Amino acid sequence: MKMIHIIVFFFYLLSYTSHAVSTNDFCVANFMFPKTPSGYPCKPETNVTADDFASSNLNVLRTAFVKDIPGLNGLGISAAKIDIDINGTVPMHIHPDASELIIVARGQITAGFITPTKLYEKNLKVGDVFVFPTGLLHFQVNTGSENAIVYAVYGSSNPSIQLLFDLLFKNNLPTPIIEKTTLLDPSQIMKLKAQLGGSG
Amino acid sequence: MKMIHIIVFFFYLLSYTSHAVSTNDFCVANFMFPKTPSGYPCKPETNVTADDFASSNLNVLRTAFVKDIPGLNGLGISAAKIDIDINGTVPMHIHPDASELIIVARGQITAGFITPTKLYEKNLKVGDVFVFPTGLLHFQVNTGSENAIVYAVYGSSNPSIQLLFDLLFKNNLPTPIIEKTTLLDPSQIMKLKAQLGGSG
Amino acid sequence: MKMIHIIVFFFYLLSYTSHAVSTNDFCVANFMFPKTPSGYPCKPETNVTADDFASSNLNVLRTAFVKDIPGLNGLGISAAKIDIDINGTVPMHIHPDASELIIVARGQITAGFITPTKLYEKNLKVGDVFVFPTGLLHFQVNTGSENAIVYAVYGSSNPSIQLLFDLLFKNNLPTPIIEKTTLLDPSQIMKLKAQLGGSG
Amino acid sequence: MKMIHIIVFFFYLLSYTSHAVSTNDFCVANFMFPKTPSGYPCKPETNVTADDFASSNLNVLRTAFVKDIPGLNGLGISAAKIDIDINGTVPMHIHPDASELIIVARGQITAGFITPTKLYEKNLKVGDVFVFPTGLLHFQVNTGSENAIVYAVYGSSNPSIQLLFDLLFKNNLPTPIIEKTTLLDPSQIMKLKAQLGGSG
Amino acid sequence: MKMIHIIVFFFYLLSYTSHAVSTNDFCVANFMFPKTPSGYPCKPETNVTADDFASSNLNVLRTAFVKDIPGLNGLGISAAKIDIDINGTVPMHIHPDASELIIVARGQITAGFITPTKLYEKNLKVGDVFVFPTGLLHFQVNTGSENAIVYAVYGSSNPSIQLLFDLLFKNNLPTPIIEKTTLLDPSQIMKLKAQLGGSG
Amino acid sequence: MKMIHIIVFFFYLLSYTSHAVSTNDFCVANFMFPKTPSGYPCKPETNVTADDFASSNLNVLRTAFVKDIPGLNGLGISAAKIDIDINGTVPMHIHPDASELIIVARGQITAGFITPTKLYEKNLKVGDVFVFPTGLLHFQVNTGSENAIVYAVYGSSNPSIQLLFDLLFKNNLPTPIIEKTTLLDPSQIMKLKAQLGGSG
Repeated sequence: MKMIHIIVFFFYLLSYTSHAVSTNDFCVANFMFPKTPSGYPCKPETNVTADDFASSNLNVLRTAFVKDIPGLNGLGISAAKIDIDINGTVPMHIHPDASELIIVARGQITAGFITPTKLYEKNLKVGDVFVFPTGLLHFQVNTGSENAIVYAVYGSSNPSIQLLFDLLFKNNLPTPIIEKTTLLDPSQIMKLKAQLGGSG
Repeated sequence: MKMIHIIVFFFYLLSYTSHAVSTNDFCVANFMFPKTPSGYPCKPETNVTADDFASSNLNVLRTAFVKDIPGLNGLGISAAKIDIDINGTVPMHIHPDASELIIVARGQITAGFITPTKLYEKNLKVGDVFVFPTGLLHFQVNTGSENAIVYAVYGSSNPSIQLLFDLLFKNNLPTPIIEKTTLLDPSQIMKLKAQLGGSG
Repeated sequence: MKMIHIIVFFFYLLSYTSHAVSTNDFCVANFMFPKTPSGYPCKPETNVTADDFASSNLNVLRTAFVKDIPGLNGLGISAAKIDIDINGTVPMHIHPDASELIIVARGQITAGFITPTKLYEKNLKVGDVFVFPTGLLHFQVNTGSENAIVYAVYGSSNPSIQLLFDLLFKNNLPTPIIEKTTLLDPSQIMKLKAQLGGSG
Repeated sequence: MKMIHIIVFFFYLLSYTSHAVSTNDFCVANFMFPKTPSGYPCKPETNVTADDFASSNLNVLRTAFVKDIPGLNGLGISAAKIDIDINGTVPMHIHPDASELIIVARGQITAGFITPTKLYEKNLKVGDVFVFPTGLLHFQVNTGSENAIVYAVYGSSNPSIQLLFDLLFKNNLPTPIIEKTTLLDPSQIMKLKAQLGGSG
Repeated sequence: MKMIHIIVFFFYLLSYTSHAVSTNDFCVANFMFPKTPSGYPCKPETNVTADDFASSNLNVLRTAFVKDIPGLNGLGISAAKIDIDINGTVPMHIHPDASELIIVARGQITAGFITPTKLYEKNLKVGDVFVFPTGLLHFQVNTGSENAIVYAVYGSSNPSIQLLFDLLFKNNLPTPIIEKTTLLDPSQIMKLKAQLGGSG
Repeated sequence: MKMIHIIVFFFYLLSYTSHAVSTNDFCVANFMFPKTPSGYPCKPETNVTADDFASSNLNVLRTAFVKDIPGLNGLGISAAKIDIDINGTVPMHIHPDASELIIVARGQITAGFITPTKLYEKNLKVGDVFVFPTGLLHFQVNTGSENAIVYAVYGSSNPSIQLLFDLLFKNNLPTPIIEKTTLLDPSQIMKLKAQLGGSG
């Protein structure tokens, strides 16, 4: 055993001398410091517990993003649970920074994404999986006869969710500019601005 | 409308002239060509259909990896459904190239990962989420009284799964080398080599 | 000089022995092979000329993308020249894979991008610069009294251009799905489908 | 409309609960904190305005780098306007961290870059584009009969500019070391050290 | 010379105006601030000296990691010197975040790494080189008749070192869980827990 | 043992179904296909042996680059052994795509790199380590009284080596352009062109 101990001692020495410097095993988000382009600064490892890697109720919280699980920081994944009522939808939206994979856990839905040349659309039932590549406009519609439950997985620890009608109608972008850049009729624009709380 | 059409014509021209060159909207895996460090080469976009982004039954196939859904290529995410029988486990293993997030869909489990300084372990029930950072040794044990179902999400479109006892006991690594580099007793090594089909 | 020659000889030896293996100085796109997630395979270095890094007339070609300049492959930049007529616009669109920086070379425009919480908009004159972060919905409108010229720069060698009204109205996405996922009126949807050539 | 509102409510809930955590839409540089390898920490989103993404006069400022447009932080692009007098040059230099694309807006120039095996050089006129791959030694020379104007685009938000003669002759690197490592004559070295302000 | 000076003046202007903003030439680690997923924040460039890029005695310190050489921050390389006594070993371990290349400088060793399907093993003598891909379980054994010296190089500035027997036996992971997830006998587990200081 | 076998069976199933698709454990270079921006395509895993990860004599071959060790493909590290004669040098050069770390194994050298604002230089003896950040001009000079041996490590599997005097004087770049862009005297340029084999 002596020989092994000698070299093991070398590794323990390593561990010891590197005590002041965090390892690269993980980087739990420290929300006391501002975010960087690569994610949040890391919490000191001595303060990290198993709870930093867990979230206790996806059914209520709906999301398992870095705000919910600080241990996701820098790992580039996250998840959400989405309930879609009968006849309900997940409206047209974009994640500029994340791919998305969905797993249908209950019900039936139609899901699709759109590129300049084509619509990619599928009817999905329980156990089916579908993928929305990064940055593409996509949607889900409950096309079954019961509430649907979908698990969504994102290639980002903090995916941005951009609902199309919010982008267009929920701010102060003037109606004439929306008209000229979308071809929509002014009456349509004003109707939705009123509905969603936009001005201009 | 005239002004819009002029500039739109410009964009259509763009689309036209770039016909010979694929866009960057996605890169569906073309398994006829060898993989590269960034993933598989892309299938011609004209041959791509919605089925390239879908998998029809996670309950049977168990995995939604790039082999199952070629549209995952280059997106850096994938998923699996794992059933753990009563008293069953997901044995100690490592994904050298992927983080993992698990969602407990049924039953109760204990999940954990291990770093040189600490064990990070949690008891999880339905709706709970836990994260295993990239490359760390981790496990799951069914600690409830029914079969457990877990959805696992990976930060890779093709995660490598390395079971610890396969790495140690299922190949021709000589017993004396295992003994010297793991501190395990020769009798223990030989017993598990016999059980798992290793030689040496 | 002798000492220098000795070590220089070592470097020449390096060059010689590595003859069969391309260097990493650049990777000119070889369009004979399928694209990968990291870009096109590289043309053999012996066939590369200065023309692979040049494009002869941006005024006519409008774009300097990888299809125009194969030497851009793997470099993550490209450019375009955009003429916007009086009262013309660059309609609402998204580049899922690229940031964009614009330089106004002639005329006056209003440019903006939109996030879920806010509109970021500026009036720009000759010499002004504006930035659209990756994946965000953005537009330009000629708000001056002459034709405008804008140089656009992209953080991708092959940016995807997704016009919003094409995504919504130029394919076979059924009107009821558009209605439910965008809140637009069916009459508006059908009017624009007719105008842009969509069906369903 | 009821069904849509239900799911929209879910998304608003998301927006609400994530209030304390910045989105990933952009990361405007916060110069009050030290830079990281991925760029500057992000300014709080509530303090960000359209001005953070704009620069008002490239003709005077010459550069549109992250110091000029903090919104470029993390986006990996920037631009500059370069005037080259008749017979003037952009001397031999290197950007260790950025590719460069140039657009000739006025005049005629000769531009080139150099690899160990070859010179890549082109004569360029108005509307021509040329590319310098990352880290390669390159130059521009005004070869026309009027002042030239060139727009330069960089694949970095903060490109480093390293003039060759500054590196060699503007510091305290001893003449004998320069001589031995460049083959230049001591008289040539001392002449240029005097001209550029170097010592040693 | 006048023309050159004009354009050079432009570059000096650049240098001057960018004084407040660090360049991207390097990012020496500033250990006063918390690490981020991309590495440590950067020390102000005016405080950086050549010593930040050097380490004075690898023979004693054993490692040249970012803790030893702050200039390694963000560069993704580091090195170590490993002495392996006669009959000694570098025990089974994993670097979750780094590839490793070894150069045998003295003695003879056997080195290997293990994948789920195969053992990759070589006998190495002075001047031989071997590579362990990222995240794979690997080992070294002195198989010669003298002490061996090995230079190890890592594709990370701060590689994490995870000794397998420490992960399994040096913490409070309960014996029944180790048993169920590794197939090891309880007696073996308890013997090694006692030897290495683990509990449970 | 039954429970473990059930879940293990699941993993073996995984291995089996993924047979047609390579794992991500490594990507040994397949030189029969053209390189991509992320490296060479991968050799089929069934043809890979331990020899793909080894090089048998660094003393003679001098380099351990991807051409020497195809298993380095995609791993981003490599190494070289450099002998510097008494009074010899490693001339001024640049690696546009790689950081470098050196370990002095014999003799004494002076090593340095240069940024626009400063020279970073150190005298190094046996056991000393020094780092050259990516893309910066650097050199080594034997300043001891015996031949020096240096191990160099690179943050690239295929580093490009660009000797400054080769770039300037060993091709057909016309003397007047070199003169205008470097400030060197024509006589100096012509003398070195003659010495190194350049024309123009």
